[in-house]
Amino acid sequence: MSKRPTIGIFDSGFGGLTVMRSLLTLIPGANYVYLGDTARLPYGSKSRETIARYAVDSLRFLEAQGAELFVVACNTASALALDALEAEAKIPVIGVIEPGAAAVRAAYNQTMSEAAVTDLAGNGVLVLATEATVQSHAYARACAEHGMKAFEKACPLLVPLVEEGWIDSPVTEEVVRIYLAEALTQAREHNITPHTILLGCTHYPLLQPVLECVLLKHFGANEPMGILDSAEATAQRVKQIMAERFPAIPTGSGELKFFATDSVEKFQRLGSRFLGQPIAHVQHVDLGG
Amino acid sequence: MSKRPTIGIFDSGFGGLTVMRSLLTLIPGANYVYLGDTARLPYGSKSRETIARYAVDSLRFLEAQGAELFVVACNTASALALDALEAEAKIPVIGVIEPGAAAVRAAYNQTMSEAAVTDLAGNGVLVLATEATVQSHAYARACAEHGMKAFEKACPLLVPLVEEGWIDSPVTEEVVRIYLAEALTQAREHNITPHTILLGCTHYPLLQPVLECVLLKHFGANEPMGILDSAEATAQRVKQIMAERFPAIPTGSGELKFFATDSVEKFQRLGSRFLGQPIAHVQHVDLGG
Repeated sequence: MSKRPTIGIFDSGFGGLTVMRSLLTLIPGANYVYLGDTARLPYGSKSRETIARYAVDSLRFLEAQGAELFVVACNTASALALDALEAEAKIPVIGVIEPGAAAVRAAYNQTMSEAAVTDLAGNGVLVLATEATVQSHAYARACAEHGMKAFEKACPLLVPLVEEGWIDSPVTEEVVRIYLAEALTQAREHNITPHTILLGCTHYPLLQPVLECVLLKHFGANEPMGILDSAEATAQRVKQIMAERFPAIPTGSGELKFFATDSVEKFQRLGSRFLGQPIAHVQHVDLGG
Repeated sequence: MSKRPTIGIFDSGFGGLTVMRSLLTLIPGANYVYLGDTARLPYGSKSRETIARYAVDSLRFLEAQGAELFVVACNTASALALDALEAEAKIPVIGVIEPGAAAVRAAYNQTMSEAAVTDLAGNGVLVLATEATVQSHAYARACAEHGMKAFEKACPLLVPLVEEGWIDSPVTEEVVRIYLAEALTQAREHNITPHTILLGCTHYPLLQPVLECVLLKHFGANEPMGILDSAEATAQRVKQIMAERFPAIPTGSGELKFFATDSVEKFQRLGSRFLGQPIAHVQHVDLGG
């Protein structure tokens, strides 16, 4: 029987656990090593050089833990450090941004007529993300490569709301309604009519139900939009690559290991929400300052 | 004519500008040098040693800029690094926590009968602060030294709401209502009946109007409470110390200098809101990693 391959997943915090949750469903037989660089978050306010240095530290750590594939389950690091990681890595590196854009394009091609597909003028995407990801314009570039125009909207309150656990609070519904209304107005000013909302932050999959509810209640008739998330799209991409490299992954469940650079207690408490299952044990690791 | 004294103010971000705003009203004739260590925020998730090292870096910088008094306008640094700063400083150091607790005690003594003042059982304070400040329990200790029982409530959404500029949004009103309702229930479970709300975060003075409105609309009749903020209390303490050390401060306005360790553009844009007046010029400074 073949050996279980090991997938390394890295994020500055807990958000990347939504990518891991999708992966556990798609590839339950792999071993997983997750590293949350929680002591040095948020990456969003730091320079490209610093983020690249931090991300490479994490790559080295997960390679040493036996990772055979490195998933950058962090939008900021994917936007700013993917080149540096690919240059340094001995193993394949997968970020969250390109798979997100590709998934929107694939879904659009499936649902639309050929005429609509080639009419790029109306082919708009609304990307919801953090301030740092929006400022990098990495999603706009990735969408442009797939022939789509993206409007990127920064939603700074969504991460704190998710971390506070207010997933189905009326407050969160109202915040989402305000952000969506602003985004659609601003997108229209840029001549972009979105057909899809792309969740460009690994915290946001937890808000998918409230987003769907807000779309239905407040925008449904006028703005029919699908919702896709980069976490799920990235997991699908990883599945594809794993299938090529490890065609015979054993059945049953692999081993899950979790490392954090800051409080393991907080990681365990918050992380379980993102992973959708309890996290039994988290080990502390020091990657330096 | 005597020389203008220079007051150094330090915070991890923009929040300390609310202390500076109060100081500009109380001591308009002083020169001010403000340092926001924005590249290394948030301090909340970092260890006591790291925060002390960062705070001492800032002290050295402001001393080199000619500061004759060092105001730690940051609750986390006041809670965790005041001892280290006092050990290293050549100039007086003033934190925000003790002045906040002292101000609550003074206001309580003024408004209550002597019998009530000596009845410590009912002498409760509700401290609203960030998670890191609450976990340090620095306010509970400072209040205990003034014979008061504090219940400390972490309000993680308030800083992001203020930074998003949603000062008078119905969303913020609802978030404040939820936090206050939770806090009063939890305080009661700890046998604490608050007579005063102490704003233990330098971002929160911007929420004072919405707090007053929520108290009036939702809690007014049952829970009569005053609101005090540590920013204003600290400014009053600084005024007192300055009056002793510099009895003849020239009239007119002194010079204002602003330094930030990260984006000066963001500091200028967000900072003006906290200072309550436009910030003309911000200089970038690198204090290391």
